[in-house]
Formats: sequence, structure tokens, C-alpha cells
Amino acid sequence: MNGAERIIQTAIACGIDVCFANPGTTEMPLVAALDSVPGIRAVLGTFEGVCTGAADGYGRVTRRPAMTLLHLGPGFANGIANLHNAKRAHTPIVNIIGEHASWHLGADPPLHSDIESLAAPVSHWLRRSTSAETLASDVAEAVAAACTPPGHIATLIVPNDFMLQTAASDAQPLPVPAATPVTDDDVARAAALLADGEATMLLLGGHALHEAGLQQAGRIAAVTGCALICETFPARMARGAGIPAPSRFPYFPEQGLELLAKFKRVIYAGARPPVTFFGYDGVPSHLVSDAHQTVMLAAPGDDVVDALTRLASAVNATDASQVADSSPPEMPTGKLDGDKLCRVIAALQPEGAFIMDEGVTSTLNYLDIAAGAPPYTYMRITGGAIGMGIPASTGAAIAADGRPVINIQADGSGLYTLQGLWTQARENLNVTTVLCNNRSYRILQFELMRAGITPGDAARALSNLAEPAPDWVQLARGFGVAAARAEDAESLAHELERALNEDGPHLIEAML
Amino acid sequence: MNGAERIIQTAIACGIDVCFANPGTTEMPLVAALDSVPGIRAVLGTFEGVCTGAADGYGRVTRRPAMTLLHLGPGFANGIANLHNAKRAHTPIVNIIGEHASWHLGADPPLHSDIESLAAPVSHWLRRSTSAETLASDVAEAVAAACTPPGHIATLIVPNDFMLQTAASDAQPLPVPAATPVTDDDVARAAALLADGEATMLLLGGHALHEAGLQQAGRIAAVTGCALICETFPARMARGAGIPAPSRFPYFPEQGLELLAKFKRVIYAGARPPVTFFGYDGVPSHLVSDAHQTVMLAAPGDDVVDALTRLASAVNATDASQVADSSPPEMPTGKLDGDKLCRVIAALQPEGAFIMDEGVTSTLNYLDIAAGAPPYTYMRITGGAIGMGIPASTGAAIAADGRPVINIQADGSGLYTLQGLWTQARENLNVTTVLCNNRSYRILQFELMRAGITPGDAARALSNLAEPAPDWVQLARGFGVAAARAEDAESLAHELERALNEDGPHLIEAML
Repeated sequence: MNGAERIIQTAIACGIDVCFANPGTTEMPLVAALDSVPGIRAVLGTFEGVCTGAADGYGRVTRRPAMTLLHLGPGFANGIANLHNAKRAHTPIVNIIGEHASWHLGADPPLHSDIESLAAPVSHWLRRSTSAETLASDVAEAVAAACTPPGHIATLIVPNDFMLQTAASDAQPLPVPAATPVTDDDVARAAALLADGEATMLLLGGHALHEAGLQQAGRIAAVTGCALICETFPARMARGAGIPAPSRFPYFPEQGLELLAKFKRVIYAGARPPVTFFGYDGVPSHLVSDAHQTVMLAAPGDDVVDALTRLASAVNATDASQVADSSPPEMPTGKLDGDKLCRVIAALQPEGAFIMDEGVTSTLNYLDIAAGAPPYTYMRITGGAIGMGIPASTGAAIAADGRPVINIQADGSGLYTLQGLWTQARENLNVTTVLCNNRSYRILQFELMRAGITPGDAARALSNLAEPAPDWVQLARGFGVAAARAEDAESLAHELERALNEDGPHLIEAML
Repeated sequence: MNGAERIIQTAIACGIDVCFANPGTTEMPLVAALDSVPGIRAVLGTFEGVCTGAADGYGRVTRRPAMTLLHLGPGFANGIANLHNAKRAHTPIVNIIGEHASWHLGADPPLHSDIESLAAPVSHWLRRSTSAETLASDVAEAVAAACTPPGHIATLIVPNDFMLQTAASDAQPLPVPAATPVTDDDVARAAALLADGEATMLLLGGHALHEAGLQQAGRIAAVTGCALICETFPARMARGAGIPAPSRFPYFPEQGLELLAKFKRVIYAGARPPVTFFGYDGVPSHLVSDAHQTVMLAAPGDDVVDALTRLASAVNATDASQVADSSPPEMPTGKLDGDKLCRVIAALQPEGAFIMDEGVTSTLNYLDIAAGAPPYTYMRITGGAIGMGIPASTGAAIAADGRPVINIQADGSGLYTLQGLWTQARENLNVTTVLCNNRSYRILQFELMRAGITPGDAARALSNLAEPAPDWVQLARGFGVAAARAEDAESLAHELERALNEDGPHLIEAML
């Protein structure tokens, strides 16, 4: 075997079964190895941000890393924004970057750049392979690093010559550490906070939002009366009828402060203390103040489900859990707005659906509206690097293996990585993109308003997408995705039903 | 004035008149300042790679820096690939990155990342502003750094709070150093190499390829018989009837070695010694061997036009220059291939056109085919980071102020940054994109063949774009660009004539 084949062989042994790739010349040995060592599904993205975003979506659904295959520094750079989101989501991903032959770097060829400097900000684990013989063990370490709780980005830079050389050494999968159990003291301190009925927020994040964690949180809330709140940007959350339905910690700081004012105590379970998304004059970065009593029950990387289970026991919770009733919303009618769009989706989304939310201002209330829909999995953009929805829903659909994925997609964000639609068509994925077309960067218009700025010509030009308005029906069809336009709630419902009943990808351009 | 207004005021004073922007919340003060301090045209890109590529095209045409306005680390990251190309092209660019408020960074908000680490690999000059009062001088230094020969990327990171604070200090434009004159010794050594008629290659790059440099090179060639060769990836070259027409140094190493075998001597004029694009087993990185006598007449950053002028005197050149005759190619007919596509363009391109070449395998022979076209300016991708053509032709068209730009665009590369078509529509730019649709990453298929790899399922999947084939007519129309398909040479000619006669952007999908 050559080095490239050892990479693929080891990745397969470590449980990797999908590679989102946009290879170039330096990765040709790996492309050949994907054929000669079968076991990994190779999925082409026509832009690297599609590959990394797809790996994020895939990892959120399977909780296992996909591999990405990226071309040198500039190819990797195109994938950074979605790796930033994945890093904030604690999604496990293994990036393989093909590098020039080691002996060629000194010549400073045109595509040469400092890959380590580019990769470090989005990689928890980063290594440059130093020989063909270490490639197998490098990959085994990368996968173990990626899988270490709470989930990490591992990036391996592989010079082309090592891929081509004979590599005698193989490597076995490495043990992956379990999530760290919290101490009895942590549990006791949280239980003490809940003992006297004082208003307490249980702020849930990470795996606390998977169904097992939520059910324990629901039991705790049922007996203590604490409020269940989820972090502002949940990477993955179980939702729907029969599942405890935390409210979302608000995005805008004034609303966050208003919510916190109702509580004297905050317990963090898998969530970080909330910080404002941007720094606003006169608003503190950290919204929880010294006036609050706080306990960190479980930090990211701790075994938060176990911690919540033990906390439920400590507060003498019963089997009764505070769960959402089945209450699909009534179907709205007439001209669409963001809330109506969410109501149409919530009314029609099938049980077991995966909902990807990059709706930005159009989906502010989706989680509340769809709290009583049939049980589903909710995922949203985590790191604020827009352009995640189309790629991540693509990867989620590959992981979902036929189960429906609905991507609620803001138009401005969607324009970043619309190439992902092509991969949906090539792989014939069951993704329905509901494109929220408000022909603007609405969030920027909000922020201008909040800052008291009356937009002049430049501010108007830089925050609107109306001149000309992109025609998403044509864009989707250009990539081979079936598409239709919905001008009102009725037509959105009609098109969504159709899309969910047909195989393959669809895009519905919802005019807001 | 606040800090943001000082930034814009200083940029205007330093000669900046265009800003390619994709702003976010942290850049709102700058967006407002673009209105309150008039003088800079704000152009929206719907993806940051469009902004940086447009700045590259703009800078190549005007030889002055445009400003980009990018949002935090992930927004900047989306622009890295085209900055990599611009850096290799020595294009002057000033990047302004809006950063979180300085006091907010410690909270590690979701969009926080290590911007310096991301920016360093593509920035010659990189600074984080430390107060509102230094913003004006920071901008003046950034512009001077960008303009210093041979042209640089300057990146300034500006915390949001400094933009909002009152800033009393202004700054004057700084002097920009001229290109360094070469020594008399350099000229004498080059002249000595040319003295005895031994076969000599004069390898031209950088400003040697602008018309003044080429005319001097042509005078030298006329009297000494040396061969004029241009670097493989010219950032900008004057071309056409009446202009000396160097051959291009070949991309593939075996052809480069074959060419070099014809020469005993090589003189570098604004070009680096040629290295292979990738490292290939059995081929040296540096193609010029110890068997060649070499002289570095002028390195990038040296005054190569002056050096060539002095060399022409030293070899007693006359006014006679070795220039291309006017010889537009005959119009081809029938089914299209890459060469026919180039011949159609060469036959129709108007005098003074700007030709952007990201045709990759379809335009291998364009420069030879169009050597005798009416005088034009040729530009091509320099750093191998694909996705440059659509953005760079957009920026070039803004700089060209109505003169026609023709972008010869490979399909796989075009998919990287197709969002640039929207900016062409919004700004109603005279850009005609000739999209070379071969439904594949043809260069990868070449490389697989060269490596002796018979493609299996994965290799086929990862190198073809045929299933489904993107429909570029729909994609272009979806962005508001007039589009048509050309199935043969006659229809390409018909559509190209029409596009060149109508205002505004056009895309012609040429089926290869």
C-alpha cells in the first residue's frame, strides 16, 4: 500500500464512511485510494465551504466525524467559515489537506501558503505528517482527537510525496475518552440552588439538548419549577410533542437581560455563560451579573446527561416530565411573513424530520411555533459565519439516509454557498430548502436601526439585495434542483407538501 | 468625526475611490461613514471572495488599491483564496476588517477568532488598530504599504469601539517609494550575456509585461535575436497588433524543460526563476539548471522598465521592435473546442478590451491565437486559487469605466464564485463571461492520466460535473445577467457580437 491508501484504510478502520471532497492535483493519490480501498463514500462539493458545511451537518446527525478532502491552503481557506461554525457546534470533523511534495515547498510554487496559520484558528488538533510511515497513526490520532468529547476539529496536512511512497505501517483505532463525569459536589451545589423554590434558570446546551438530556431536564423542572432555557445557538436539539421544550435564550441583549432579570439563580448544563453576540455600548459582554447565584453543573465536554440524571435524583424528581403537548399550529393563509412561514413548516413537517435553521430574522419564532410538532431534530447555525444552511443540510441528508431534511434558509446567507444545491442534486438527497426571500440583509437593517443610523445611499446599497432580486427558482434549477415560488401561505403549503412527497431535492422560494 | 469617518476620510485622501464590501454588524459605523464622508463608491459583493477578487481585478487595471470591507475572521476567511491570487499578482489592496469591540473580545463571542493568524498568510502588511486616534495614520500607512512596489496586500483590523469613538487626529497620505533602479552592473552583465548571439531567453514578468516594458524588450530582441518569453501566470500583459508578443512559459514541466533545452542563457526581467506548479516525481522544482548561465536583471519590485530601457541602450538597440502583426484569426465554424472558442473571441474582441483568462484547459493557446488581435490588456489567474475570473472581471469592469471586459471562464472554477454575476448585474457592468462548459474538472482528468491512474468510480465522480450538468444560462439569469447558450462556433460568434454591442453584463455558455 502507498501512503494515501494507508490514510483511507485507517480512516475506514476508525469508522469514517463519508468524505466530502474538492480535490486538486496534490490529492490525486487520495482520490485513487478512495477507489482502491473501498469503504468511503466520496461526495463532491463544487466549493470547499460546501464540503466543510456538509461535514458539520453530517457530524451533527451521526455524532461521528466525516472526512473532508481539501486542496492546499487556498482550498482549505474556502472551508474555514463553515469549520468555524462546526468548531462552535463541537462537531467532530477530520480534515485532510493535500500539501505540495515536501521537497517542493522550498521553491515557493504559486499555490504555496502557510497552511498551519490558516488552519490553526479552526482546528483543535493540527498536524503536518512527516513521513509515509506515520500517515496511518496520524489519521488514527486525528480521528480520536475529533471524537474526544465534546467533539473537535482535527486537521492533518499531508505532503503529496508521502501519499505516493510505500507505507508498510498500519494503525489501529485509538480509544476515545468518554465525557468527563461531573463531581458529586457539582450536583449537590446545583441541587442546593433548586431546593427552596427561588426562581432558577436551567440553561441547557450541547448534549443536554439531545432527547435523553432534555427528558432529565424536564423531570427536574416538573419537580422544582425551574425554567428550562436553551443556549441561543443549539447545534442539535430534540424538539416536538412529548419532549421538554426549553425557550431559547434571546439573541438581542436587551431581551436577554429582561429574561435574566426574572431569575436569581442560573445553573449551566452543557452551556457556557451567555455573552452578547456583538459588543454593544452600555451593555456588558456577560449578561449574567454578579447579582445572580450560578453553578456550572456541566461544562462542554462533561457528561451532561449523566449530570442531569444525577441532579434529577438529588431533587427527588419523579417520572413526570414537563414536556410539550402535541399542538401543530393552524395553517395560516394569505401574504407570507416570517412567522407564517414557520407555521406552514411546523404544520407539515413529518415526524423524524431534521430541521436546519439558517432563517436568521425570518425564523426568530420557529422554535416556539414548532414546539408541538411531531418529534424532530433541530439544528442551527452556531458560529455566526453565514452560509451554513445549504451545505449542512446536504451533509445532514447524507447522514439521514432518506429521512427528510428541511432547510429554512435566509436569502443573503444562502447566496454564500448556493453551490451546495448541486451536491443535493447529484446525490439525489431528500432536502427541501425553504428559501426566505426578503431581498435584503434584514439583520443589518435592524442593526442600523438599533444604532440610530438613517441609511444613506451606501448603507441602503450594502444592506439590500433587491436590485436585482436574485431569482432562486432559476438558481436552483440551474443546479438541477426542482424549484417553485410561493407568493402566499397557501402556495407554500402546497409546494411543501409536494416536495416532502417527492424524492430528491427541492427548493421553494418563499416571497416575504 | 468618529473613527470610522477618519478611516474613510483618510482613504479618500490617499486616493482610494472604490470599496468592495460585504459588511456585518461590526462594520456598521463604516457603512454609515461611507454616506457621511462621500467620495468612495461602495460596491456590494454577496460573498467575500467576490469582494477580494474584484479588488484584485480593479487594482490590476488601475494600479491603485481598492479597499475591501470584510466582517470579522470568518468573513475575511471567505476572501482569502482571491487574496492569495492578488498577492501572487502583486496587486495593491487595502483590506479593512471590522473586529468586535476591543472590550468584548475577552468574552469569546461566537464570531470571535484569531484574525491575525488567518490574515498573515495573505498580507504583506498587517496591523490591529489600538485606538481611535491612530485610525487615520493606520490607514495612511496601509495605503502606502499597499502601493509600495511591486504592490502589496495591506490588512487593517479595526475594533468596532474605536470606529464609534471621537477621533480628532487626521493623517496625510504618506510618500510611496518608487521601484528600485537596478545597478549598472546588472545591466552590464545582462548585456554581456546577449553580446555573442548565443541562444538566450529573456524571461519577462511583472511590469516588464506592460506595454512600455514590452516595447523595450522588443527592441532588445530585434537587435540581439534573444527569445521573449513571459512568465506562466502574467498578472497583466499588453498584447495585440503592434506589441511585442512573448510566448508563455509552459505550465506542464516537460514542456518547460523542452523549451529551456533550446537556451544556454536566461535573463530574468521582473520574473522569478520558473518553478513547476506542483512537485512531480523525477522533475526538479527549479527548471532552469546549473547548465544555464543566468542573470537577474530586475527582480519584482525593481524598476524593470527602466532596466530594460538601459539594457536596450547597452546592446545598441535601434527603434525597430519585434512586434506582432495585425492578424486576427479566421472565424472558425462547427462544433466548439477550446481553440475554436479562443479564435472566435480573438476575432471579435474590440481594441482596448480587457481579457480575463480563467479558462484553464480551454484557453491553453489563447495568447498565441490572439497575439495579432487589436491591442488589448490580458490578465489571468496568478496563484492557482480557482474562482478568480468572475470576481476579478467584475472589479476590472468597474475600473474600466465602460470599456469592455471579456472573462473567459472555466466552468469548475466559475462555480466557486458565481455570486459575482449578481454584482455585475447590480452595477450594470460591461462584462461578457464566455463560460467554457466542459462539465468537468478537466485539469484533474489530465493529472490523473499523467499519473497513470485509471479512474474508478470515486475518481470519476470527483472529476466530473456532468451529473447533473449545471445550466449556466439559468444560473446567470437567476442573478439578473442576460445569458445565452452557444452550441457551435457560429452561435458563439453571434452571441458574442450581440453581448459586446449591448450595455450591461452577459454570459454565454459555450458548450465544449
